[in-house]
Amino acid sequence: MIDPTPYPVSGAWRPGDDPGRRRFLTIAADRPFALDHGGRLHDVAIAYETWGELDATGSNAVLVCHAWTGDSHLAGPAGRGHPTPGWWEGVVGPALPIDTERHFVVCANVLGGCQGSTGPASIDPETGRPYGSAFPMITIRDMVRAQARLADHLGVERWLSVLGGSMGGMQVLEWAITYPERVQSIVPIATCAQATAQQIAWGAIGRRAIRLDPRWRGGDYYEASPGDGPHEGLAIARMVAQVTFRSDNAFSDRFGRELAEHEHDEPGLWQRFEVERYLDHHGVKLVRRFDANSYLVIGKAMDLHDVGKGRGGLESGIARIRVPTLVLGINSDILYPIYQQRQIHQLLARNGTPTELVEIDSPHGHDAFLINVDQVAEAVGVFLDEVAKRR
Amino acid sequence: MIDPTPYPVSGAWRPGDDPGRRRFLTIAADRPFALDHGGRLHDVAIAYETWGELDATGSNAVLVCHAWTGDSHLAGPAGRGHPTPGWWEGVVGPALPIDTERHFVVCANVLGGCQGSTGPASIDPETGRPYGSAFPMITIRDMVRAQARLADHLGVERWLSVLGGSMGGMQVLEWAITYPERVQSIVPIATCAQATAQQIAWGAIGRRAIRLDPRWRGGDYYEASPGDGPHEGLAIARMVAQVTFRSDNAFSDRFGRELAEHEHDEPGLWQRFEVERYLDHHGVKLVRRFDANSYLVIGKAMDLHDVGKGRGGLESGIARIRVPTLVLGINSDILYPIYQQRQIHQLLARNGTPTELVEIDSPHGHDAFLINVDQVAEAVGVFLDEVAKRR
Repeated sequence: MIDPTPYPVSGAWRPGDDPGRRRFLTIAADRPFALDHGGRLHDVAIAYETWGELDATGSNAVLVCHAWTGDSHLAGPAGRGHPTPGWWEGVVGPALPIDTERHFVVCANVLGGCQGSTGPASIDPETGRPYGSAFPMITIRDMVRAQARLADHLGVERWLSVLGGSMGGMQVLEWAITYPERVQSIVPIATCAQATAQQIAWGAIGRRAIRLDPRWRGGDYYEASPGDGPHEGLAIARMVAQVTFRSDNAFSDRFGRELAEHEHDEPGLWQRFEVERYLDHHGVKLVRRFDANSYLVIGKAMDLHDVGKGRGGLESGIARIRVPTLVLGINSDILYPIYQQRQIHQLLARNGTPTELVEIDSPHGHDAFLINVDQVAEAVGVFLDEVAKRR
Repeated sequence: MIDPTPYPVSGAWRPGDDPGRRRFLTIAADRPFALDHGGRLHDVAIAYETWGELDATGSNAVLVCHAWTGDSHLAGPAGRGHPTPGWWEGVVGPALPIDTERHFVVCANVLGGCQGSTGPASIDPETGRPYGSAFPMITIRDMVRAQARLADHLGVERWLSVLGGSMGGMQVLEWAITYPERVQSIVPIATCAQATAQQIAWGAIGRRAIRLDPRWRGGDYYEASPGDGPHEGLAIARMVAQVTFRSDNAFSDRFGRELAEHEHDEPGLWQRFEVERYLDHHGVKLVRRFDANSYLVIGKAMDLHDVGKGRGGLESGIARIRVPTLVLGINSDILYPIYQQRQIHQLLARNGTPTELVEIDSPHGHDAFLINVDQVAEAVGVFLDEVAKRR
């Protein structure tokens, strides 16, 4: 069952709260942030972290884009303001491929998120109350435009590279298309050029589970009972995602058919197998650190992801990418199957864009980009060295 | 949104209701039906249909076992007592491989079901009220033992063959193990010898969605408001299943990224893609014909399925199968992947049991055993002819 511990609604972060390593850019109130689907946001806050220093020529800046429930905390321990340890330890750090001693590394919580950036749990300056159901639709392109404002703020004219896995990879592709002059290279990982029907289906099921939870209250649950919310619906949505993040073989090897409850327990509908306990555990963990409305809004942005939209279709969209690209895929990924990364690579190659495809050999499925960091680090290291030499 | 049309709680069928083609066996009240997990049921009803006649030597009887939400209506139009048309048209019928002119064909609604056999929506004779949450745990083996009572009733000493796909295939395996002397051959299709962690995970997610629906009421929703029930939770559970029943490619080809709602509709969280409309449609269809508690009870029976349980493990369980076996698998099945059928075939072959593996080539995923009936029929036809010759 879901632990009733209140999750941190840190999208509602305010001065005085412990920011951890995070800093905040507020996009000026006199310039409302216009969104793809017609909404406008005022006083947009973007929470971000940086490592290292921008060099005199501005040539060493690296942007990392996070996935669905990720945040700006790429590296470093958990703590106040950082509910989880760095999510890409082993790839980012001193003397690692994304080298915090050589590079100026930046990671920002996405627009719509709940780890410091403006999202549904934030206070709407027009009403003084949380956005909730009034939060507008956002897209991957909106997230990227907000990051471009951050680049302006940080004095980064051009990224040495933009990298990211899963939804992070969607942002990576949009960076290269929207701001070709501001990107020297890209590394999209375990991602796709457009969401497929099956990916949309998994997303839709999660959304429906959250909507079914009576504590969702149409999206306006923040003030009804502080700390309360659609925990069970969010946990179920996360269970769906978690199965797609891993693989059949990995589950069989790890859990098999073991029961989680003791043998003497009464067998019944709710007696759990180990795999169910594992999924519950991940559901509870997410509920503690993540806001259900952010989950909905960001998930929908992924379903809407299509680099070809408004650009004459998929092939024309990809054709706008002209910078050296390292495409990483995972051979056991059931959510973003390897054919999708091969497709990106092949379309780039057809247009003469320098591109390389590396297939990570792992039993862990989609999450391998967070687990098999040695393989990711090796490929990224070689690629970034080559990119730096070409300058 | 879910249509509020009441679903037929036909597990609560009573004399006077239109039985359609169905007949009913009631297992005598003085002999309570003992269940694997310790429960007992009284006055168990098994709804069944037959086609053709048992011949004088009793050598032409064929049993077909249905899947999760299936029923006894193998062939023939929909109508009262039969909410859907025959689910295996093209395999079963005059001059077809399962030949209603040559064979005596039997199909029974499983124990725990809601299409005439005793299930959670049936009246508990001890209380005079629907079982609801009081319905005991059942297993695939319980379903098979109930079918054996039906075989006794019909005068079938030995089946020429027992066939079935998905959960039907689980029953097929248990038939050959539990009653080796009553089975001359078997055809397990798109099934497994034991449920894997991933299969259990999908089942668990569906159960949680039903439990989250406030109208589930802990399982006792029949009398609260007749016709009402956890429609949305069941629809979400079905959405999960439906994605696993098909394939990534089939979804992409059929739905792509088309929107279901008109272009001028306001984009928003609940604006649906075509694939979502399709899943909704299947959810609504199931809600109209199926009971949520049956879905829970039968789904749990599948998760508990393990031919090795209490028999010294998987290999020892399979080793008890000594009759000629045709194993059918589907190369695009993501729910019961082809490796599971290869495993059954290989274990049988190792023990010297006559076995043949046919891999259906289809883009449709698990449901191909209901869609690509030509390939199924061809393999089954050849096999049954050989089995009949061997007598």
